[in-house]
Amino acid sequence: MELYTYYRSTSSYRVRIALALKGLDYQALPINLIAPPGGEHRQPAYLAINPQGRVPALRTDEGDVLVQSPAIIEYLEERYPQVPLLNADLAIRAHERGVAALIGCDIHPLHNVSVLNKLRQWGHDEGQVTEWIGHWISQGLAAVERLIGDEGFCFGATPGLADVYLIPQLYAAERFNVSLQAYPRICRVAGLAAGHAAFQRAHPANQPDTPAG
Amino acid sequence: MELYTYYRSTSSYRVRIALALKGLDYQALPINLIAPPGGEHRQPAYLAINPQGRVPALRTDEGDVLVQSPAIIEYLEERYPQVPLLNADLAIRAHERGVAALIGCDIHPLHNVSVLNKLRQWGHDEGQVTEWIGHWISQGLAAVERLIGDEGFCFGATPGLADVYLIPQLYAAERFNVSLQAYPRICRVAGLAAGHAAFQRAHPANQPDTPAG
Repeated sequence: MELYTYYRSTSSYRVRIALALKGLDYQALPINLIAPPGGEHRQPAYLAINPQGRVPALRTDEGDVLVQSPAIIEYLEERYPQVPLLNADLAIRAHERGVAALIGCDIHPLHNVSVLNKLRQWGHDEGQVTEWIGHWISQGLAAVERLIGDEGFCFGATPGLADVYLIPQLYAAERFNVSLQAYPRICRVAGLAAGHAAFQRAHPANQPDTPAG
Repeated sequence: MELYTYYRSTSSYRVRIALALKGLDYQALPINLIAPPGGEHRQPAYLAINPQGRVPALRTDEGDVLVQSPAIIEYLEERYPQVPLLNADLAIRAHERGVAALIGCDIHPLHNVSVLNKLRQWGHDEGQVTEWIGHWISQGLAAVERLIGDEGFCFGATPGLADVYLIPQLYAAERFNVSLQAYPRICRVAGLAAGHAAFQRAHPANQPDTPAG
């Protein structure tokens, strides 16, 4: 498999965790969202791969190009069911997917770089942009805190779909200086993931396109 | 099953379509997002059901309460596999889920009422709010137009997951006066859905909480 990825992209990070948890090898094809000006994802070469011009995209072993991290992760779960990310129980699967969707729909899209740039174009300063980011992350994580379990990862002793979404969102929270103090369950999960090899391998600090230093 | 729903809520509308396509009976429990001031979804009674205070939520026949439309729809697909919303082919499933995620993550959250209210709080007038909505809907639908098929519904002769997401998004586009002229494939799908009984049953105009007139 080949993964079009950017080290700091929240949704690329999710897919990298899913791949690492399942022990799947892949070739990383970095797409620089910063250089050239406007980003490599806006160049015709990448738009021919993903017409939406976003990362990640996955080229499967069968040659299909898949877009959108929720779709890619569900594909990986179905194609490589070893090390499942979802519980066998239908209601628990729905709870896991519910937390994933809350993060993937109600938190992350609101601090996507394109949204922040639109706010800047409208004259908002960095203080306001930071307030905007913090508002949506805090509101969303407060809901996640009520939905996840009391021990282990989000839904049990082993990491699953909700953790695949939560950990990259916490990386973004840290990057934007959002406090996690009010969320003890989330902090517990963060601690477990920090010591887990798959999460370490997928971390933005450990990618082929991570800037030196 | 019981569905906490609001007639005009995009994500409630998705779940209603999925239920209707599968021919599943349910009891609609309307949650008024407008009255009392601040909305019924912000009252303690509903927060005890869904701590995030959003619709939809589904109470299953087994008594579990599920939140977040993507999770609810995947649950319905697994629990009631008759009339499948996803193709049997793994890559096609991923393409269907990709369009669903593009709409569910990259379009709809950006014009959620809470986001629009935040823009209003920041002093943006209705002209700017309308520009904001139109920007994200148009950009997203342009990508959807490139990802869906050349005939039938989004991915074939029968409606599926991508259509479940697309049709409510088009209802929002119409409500916010976003032109669909540039998207002939999308308009074709809209035409097919308009004549389909399940989509009609799920439509905001035909709900128990639809205002008279």
